[in-house]
Amino acid sequence: MEQSTPNEDYVVTDRAGIVENRYAVHAAIVDTTGKLLYAVGNPSRITLARSAAKPAQALAVLETHGPDRCGFDEADLALMCASHSSERRHIRRVESMLVKVGAKEKDLACGGHPAVSEVVNRAWIKSDFTPTPVCSNCSGKHAGMLAGATAIGAGMTGYHQSDHPMQQQVKQVFGELCGLDSEEVKWGIDGCNLPSPAAPLNTLAKIYASFAAAADAVETCSTATARTRASNRIFRAMTKYPELVAGEGRFCTEFIRAFEGMSIGKIGADGCYCIGIRESKQTRNLGAVGAVGIAVKIEDGDINILYSAVLEILKLLQLGPSVMHQELSCFRRQQILNTVGILTGHVSHQFKVRRIGLAE
Amino acid sequence: MEQSTPNEDYVVTDRAGIVENRYAVHAAIVDTTGKLLYAVGNPSRITLARSAAKPAQALAVLETHGPDRCGFDEADLALMCASHSSERRHIRRVESMLVKVGAKEKDLACGGHPAVSEVVNRAWIKSDFTPTPVCSNCSGKHAGMLAGATAIGAGMTGYHQSDHPMQQQVKQVFGELCGLDSEEVKWGIDGCNLPSPAAPLNTLAKIYASFAAAADAVETCSTATARTRASNRIFRAMTKYPELVAGEGRFCTEFIRAFEGMSIGKIGADGCYCIGIRESKQTRNLGAVGAVGIAVKIEDGDINILYSAVLEILKLLQLGPSVMHQELSCFRRQQILNTVGILTGHVSHQFKVRRIGLAE
Repeated sequence: MEQSTPNEDYVVTDRAGIVENRYAVHAAIVDTTGKLLYAVGNPSRITLARSAAKPAQALAVLETHGPDRCGFDEADLALMCASHSSERRHIRRVESMLVKVGAKEKDLACGGHPAVSEVVNRAWIKSDFTPTPVCSNCSGKHAGMLAGATAIGAGMTGYHQSDHPMQQQVKQVFGELCGLDSEEVKWGIDGCNLPSPAAPLNTLAKIYASFAAAADAVETCSTATARTRASNRIFRAMTKYPELVAGEGRFCTEFIRAFEGMSIGKIGADGCYCIGIRESKQTRNLGAVGAVGIAVKIEDGDINILYSAVLEILKLLQLGPSVMHQELSCFRRQQILNTVGILTGHVSHQFKVRRIGLAE
Repeated sequence: MEQSTPNEDYVVTDRAGIVENRYAVHAAIVDTTGKLLYAVGNPSRITLARSAAKPAQALAVLETHGPDRCGFDEADLALMCASHSSERRHIRRVESMLVKVGAKEKDLACGGHPAVSEVVNRAWIKSDFTPTPVCSNCSGKHAGMLAGATAIGAGMTGYHQSDHPMQQQVKQVFGELCGLDSEEVKWGIDGCNLPSPAAPLNTLAKIYASFAAAADAVETCSTATARTRASNRIFRAMTKYPELVAGEGRFCTEFIRAFEGMSIGKIGADGCYCIGIRESKQTRNLGAVGAVGIAVKIEDGDINILYSAVLEILKLLQLGPSVMHQELSCFRRQQILNTVGILTGHVSHQFKVRRIGLAE
């Protein structure tokens, strides 16, 4: 469990110029080849991807052909990649996915929890509603896993356990996406009860670059591999239905919307964020070959600071549509106000993105 | 705003042995003379005390004789030191304090906010209640400030502003407790809209030692100074009414209860905790002269990790009743469970308390 990560890259909050909190930041920015282009902190920090692993998990499920056999549509695919807000549209869709699979809510191995959306939470409290498994922000992923488990003939029972064939297949695919033997990726158990992978940030970034690269490849090449075509379907589903990837007012939803089909971004619990950006003049300006992948981790897991750091990294790298930073400015949280609306301090980004390998 | 704090002292959370989050810890353990006995991380980290400044702010108010003139009782004094949970008993008492002062809720400069207590919050949501200033967790402090402002003839208007005579008096007293010129202490604006002091952790620890020392002194010495007697009144009020210092199930309340009159402990927002412990065999075993003061800061402000770190520090120093660690074990959060109750990881304390000045 020892892992030393000296760090001089921080997001800092202050109160009247006095340092209040300091949050260490790590990030890796890579291209399609996996080459590390830029870094913040420790770009190879081994990081539990948590829900940022969902697009990769969805890819493994899609490759079982389970979702297609069950009749999942593109919006269902998006919800398989979601940490949704438990809005009515999310829960209803998961319920319909369960019907398509021939499963019931009791087959889900995840547990209910307070909704990520405060609006939903308040409504639940007001109506004395106790959230059930289908309300879990991960229920779309679980419904997908049930479709996959059925398709490979392994049965739904224990589909979430690491020795179940569905999870073995997820591990195989995740290892391949990492470019590592599946034994080299470490796994824990996630909050929603599925296996949760850990890999160096630059490896997580490479996975996301591969999704964006697949979208480029399918448009320009008629002979794309089955994996590339499946990866493109994941990318397209997330960019077509950003409101299903997170929910009303959430960062992932607004981020994907702002990029207008050019990027996917996904939060993982405890301060991990991963981004895949299709090739453009902006990515070429960074010296990238093909698409760009970015993975960010806040050392202590703070999510609000994470969003602010992600936007700063994109700004420093000059990535994203010009209107994006304006549209997402509330997530930068530059000004800290108190309970009566008085300005008490600021969030500042005391880090740079370091160019890597210029001498190479 | 530059402040370099190299640190190898951390609280770490893991998932199946994989490091998930790492939280830097700083602490100073001093005695009544202000001598630094033990340290974690950077013991002189300049730290915004936030609500951990409340006992010192209450002392400054008590010295105006405002609370006595208004007929505040000992429980009112405790509430002046509180970050309360907005339970009915807290709000009703603040309302009665306002009546004693001859003030109205509109005179309070703090704003309402969601209650610290989830139980209270849920009740507010269910009844469509929007919290008002008297519900602020700091409303007892504000009611005290109004009593003080009136007593010194400065009027209630603008009592929260840094140039108001009441706040000038708080700054004077706080500087004296620090053993610094009042100009040397830095001030920001707190969440509740009152000035908020910052000082090195060892200085904050010394202030808390002085409250515990006052309780010792008044018991053994009939010629204690007015400040010592006033400090003892703050200490006694907090230890007599721990349920008013925080609330049902809260750390400060359980902590003070467990110490059975021997210690006060107070949370400050953004990961600051301060403790004053009366002289005993345990404190003498540490080589302390008189009482002991402890101040702890989690670099990124995480409150749950703070409570866990505080308990570990007390354990390493062998401070506190033997039953305390058992009674407060839920705050150690040693085991992390997921939404279905499965153990997914642990909180571990990867730090030591360093003995300081052995060679002196």
